[in-house]
Amino acid sequence: MRNLDAHEDYKVDEQQLHRDLTRLPGDFPRPEEAYPAPYGVVGFGEAWWPAELAHLWIPRLMTEGGTQFVLQGGLDLGAAGGAVAAAEASGARVVRVGFGEAVDVPVAPHPLSPYRYLRFLQEATGEAEAGARVDRALEALAAGLGPEVPTEDNPAKFFAWNLIERIPVWVVSERYRGLAAALQQTFARIGGSLSIAPPPGSLEFFITALEARHEQGDPLAAVVVGEDERTRLAVEILETRVDTVLELPEPPAEGLIPEMMAAWYFVAWASYYLAILYGQNPADAEVLARLREEA
Amino acid sequence: MRNLDAHEDYKVDEQQLHRDLTRLPGDFPRPEEAYPAPYGVVGFGEAWWPAELAHLWIPRLMTEGGTQFVLQGGLDLGAAGGAVAAAEASGARVVRVGFGEAVDVPVAPHPLSPYRYLRFLQEATGEAEAGARVDRALEALAAGLGPEVPTEDNPAKFFAWNLIERIPVWVVSERYRGLAAALQQTFARIGGSLSIAPPPGSLEFFITALEARHEQGDPLAAVVVGEDERTRLAVEILETRVDTVLELPEPPAEGLIPEMMAAWYFVAWASYYLAILYGQNPADAEVLARLREEA
Repeated sequence: MRNLDAHEDYKVDEQQLHRDLTRLPGDFPRPEEAYPAPYGVVGFGEAWWPAELAHLWIPRLMTEGGTQFVLQGGLDLGAAGGAVAAAEASGARVVRVGFGEAVDVPVAPHPLSPYRYLRFLQEATGEAEAGARVDRALEALAAGLGPEVPTEDNPAKFFAWNLIERIPVWVVSERYRGLAAALQQTFARIGGSLSIAPPPGSLEFFITALEARHEQGDPLAAVVVGEDERTRLAVEILETRVDTVLELPEPPAEGLIPEMMAAWYFVAWASYYLAILYGQNPADAEVLARLREEA
Repeated sequence: MRNLDAHEDYKVDEQQLHRDLTRLPGDFPRPEEAYPAPYGVVGFGEAWWPAELAHLWIPRLMTEGGTQFVLQGGLDLGAAGGAVAAAEASGARVVRVGFGEAVDVPVAPHPLSPYRYLRFLQEATGEAEAGARVDRALEALAAGLGPEVPTEDNPAKFFAWNLIERIPVWVVSERYRGLAAALQQTFARIGGSLSIAPPPGSLEFFITALEARHEQGDPLAAVVVGEDERTRLAVEILETRVDTVLELPEPPAEGLIPEMMAAWYFVAWASYYLAILYGQNPADAEVLARLREEA
């Protein structure tokens, strides 16, 4: 097994993803003009999650008049173009963010792009104060999670060691809507690994899904994000059925979106170290670029 | 391994769930009065999916005036009561469907209850015609999927054999919103087994999640529901990475909700036979009743 505190074991990180992770807080495109309200936001491909987060303060998917943001995260098979045409027909000003056709605000394909889409939207729609709280939370975390921080002091490295050859099951507080799927996505794209996001009605799922085969197959790791009555019940159910229960450190964050982004950033780091432990390149650029050409 | 065509191997089915499955089409509570529009629908616990389906024709979660349906599917930790209080305060008439406190229309806890909630709502809100199409689809399937139909003629038994000791990955057309999670839920509650519902941005997930460990762990089975450009791409990605690709038979159904219910009913039968093959009781009543008492 590799050593997370030895420089040479990071050679697989050919794209230097650890730098992107360290420098992420503040690394996003700034709006260069004012965008008139009302707003609408739709997101495609890897931009599905920032669009979902934006609906916490921008209720509408499509707006008539005002500004329509179309987040072009790729692999939309023509749907983004359809959204653009519909918004233009309704008289909204269309701002295309992301990559691909006729983009106004470029955000390159990248496993960390959800942060960049989100922060651009916050700055562009009068939510800069919440955005600053996101950045402060990520900065507070960044200092303690980088490769130079040794394993005994680095909770993300500790997490990676505990996730080796296990399948994480995301046990996420219901107040963090959409976060379990976002963690599943990031753990795949950086860690190259499968994990399980439960369906709504998660307690019924946790208590039944392991009945038939709990002695077999891959061991599971329950990863708890956000303590509440429901996640406590879930842990009670799961602790006798999984190999280990891991709790994400309390995020250094205030407010729903900063808390979610802090959890996501922590899991991105843990996924990064898991890839290093597997001797796997944590960047997914090549395989995804090929898929985007085919699609 | 057990024999799905031998009577004695069904002894584990102590609650005779196969009868509930066979008799499901038409087995739901009829509305005994007229409910005034506009409508609102919220669902909790095991009723989350019928509420989501209802939003295809009833856009509002909460209504002011008219009729507020609260689907009490259990384990809501007080949230259903909160919805009832809010709806009453707004002047809506509240109809509580499900089980637990002060229920108006009883639907017992049951792995097949989503059908019963859905059909009641359809009849109660002027969607009886779509409901009849759901029933016709399920009836058409029921005849060919029961225990008396031998394995060589029974696609649900064939599916169960192909899912033994594999983890299904649900590859579901985007037009069937929420269905992947509903299949994950049903496969857990009847089949007692884990499966994987992908996050939005499923293509990015499928192509990266198996990078690090594709030679290890539990073998996967991709289960395809609904052919379109995106599921075809997903199969191209997955076929070299999973043990087997299974396609659900074309549903004998017309329209979005009948098609989804037909797919769900087929997977319920396949999950049933998987439980039989594992020598596992396909009913989950006991373990869930205990959890509901604790919560």
